[in-house]
Amino acid sequence: MSIDFSTKLAQAQKERSSVVCVGLDPDPERLPPHLLRTHDLPEAVLAFNTAIIESTASTAAAYKLNLAFYEVLEQHGWRVLAETLAGIPDSIVTIADGKRGDIGNSARFYAHATFEKLGFDGCTVSGYMGSDSVAPFLEYDGRAAFVLIRTSNAGADEVQETGGDGSPLFERMAAWTSAWAADHPGTLGFVMGATDTKALGVIRERYPDIPLLIPGIGAQGGDEHDVMSIAALGEGPVLINSSRSIIYASSGRDFADAAGQAAESLRSRLEALR
Amino acid sequence: MSIDFSTKLAQAQKERSSVVCVGLDPDPERLPPHLLRTHDLPEAVLAFNTAIIESTASTAAAYKLNLAFYEVLEQHGWRVLAETLAGIPDSIVTIADGKRGDIGNSARFYAHATFEKLGFDGCTVSGYMGSDSVAPFLEYDGRAAFVLIRTSNAGADEVQETGGDGSPLFERMAAWTSAWAADHPGTLGFVMGATDTKALGVIRERYPDIPLLIPGIGAQGGDEHDVMSIAALGEGPVLINSSRSIIYASSGRDFADAAGQAAESLRSRLEALR
Repeated sequence: MSIDFSTKLAQAQKERSSVVCVGLDPDPERLPPHLLRTHDLPEAVLAFNTAIIESTASTAAAYKLNLAFYEVLEQHGWRVLAETLAGIPDSIVTIADGKRGDIGNSARFYAHATFEKLGFDGCTVSGYMGSDSVAPFLEYDGRAAFVLIRTSNAGADEVQETGGDGSPLFERMAAWTSAWAADHPGTLGFVMGATDTKALGVIRERYPDIPLLIPGIGAQGGDEHDVMSIAALGEGPVLINSSRSIIYASSGRDFADAAGQAAESLRSRLEALR
Repeated sequence: MSIDFSTKLAQAQKERSSVVCVGLDPDPERLPPHLLRTHDLPEAVLAFNTAIIESTASTAAAYKLNLAFYEVLEQHGWRVLAETLAGIPDSIVTIADGKRGDIGNSARFYAHATFEKLGFDGCTVSGYMGSDSVAPFLEYDGRAAFVLIRTSNAGADEVQETGGDGSPLFERMAAWTSAWAADHPGTLGFVMGATDTKALGVIRERYPDIPLLIPGIGAQGGDEHDVMSIAALGEGPVLINSSRSIIYASSGRDFADAAGQAAESLRSRLEALR
């Protein structure tokens, strides 16, 4: 039997004294120009990812790959995804950020592709379609499905804060998904943006053991100090994701070194706040 | 400038006297065994799709491709998707059923892959992340984003019927998305399951011009008569999707003929109810 997702994540975090998750979201328009001069786009992305992984593997407890940036590589997308994953040390957690959510039979195929074919440890899932759309992702021992609860983007408030039945939608989404996951302990996580610290506090206090994937610090406005204070209220592992401020720290030939330094700087700032 | 999505769809429907959308969702476990004996899986899927398209192109106003069934083909998925699309006559509408929904920058890449790289006419989108997650799909003239409003799966009720602010969530989702689309007339559609005819009636009366993609008739329990009565309350084109009851009508060597007959039977039943 495979080890529990939280156990793998806790080990990765302990080994590196790190809660950092690096987002490998290779935007074709932001790749270092010298890579695009010597490679076609898919190979440039692969060279970029490989160099970033090499320079951040000592500080990253996890890598999150947003699938949109691989889908846009057309027939090369799957291979670049698979080869990127092959370059990530086994001890580091990998998360497919695809935000899939579909009827049971289709969700089953998405989960199969994500966990079995590609071998990701975790993924992100949308719960708008209800229990049967999330269930197939929760049935894999040792893996985790991070359900979108309160996201960090500007437009999220209107939907996720909508009232009703005594609580905003995001609180109800958390309650529903934790009920759906009751038969599969250890396979549920939440995506909770750093930009709404009030929401983050409510969820952390209510579900102290559920792992949190937290995007939205830095450029998007989430405060590192506030987020780490709230994280301390619970026991479940917390991953602080940063994509652009790490992987695009430089667009020159020093991009990998700059990414390594940005990741290490974030790691040490967050550890100081632990 | 490209023609409006609804205009293209209305033309396809008029030419064939049909509101049928055929779901090309090739489940590897349900392909005709003889195809798998002579082809590897990706080629079997392609042969299956090609034969189904040939036998249904005279009755299908649209094809909807659920992306989960292509993602599971790994490195061959994109090519099978592109080659399937290449075999669909230009006059028939194509819809990528991916239910994507992500922050603006990622959504932009999904929209680019769907509309520009693959050339789909429409797609399905999840609105849980709010306006900026849907906007990139609404910005393509001549294309359409069908947002998930009330889906036909068993687990949908708990989330989409949740109360608050005077109306269930699906009604608020419809109101939000129609406001988000105000600057892009003609690019919004709704996914409305056939299984909840009350919800379908409310939405059709309130948004009579918005195109509807309606799954859930037949095996899932939606009643053809009820659905067509409600469709008659509005002017926007309506697509009645059927996947399994058409494409798996037979698993023998006659699968394509059986699919053609099932599609034609559905078409004529629905036309009689118009």
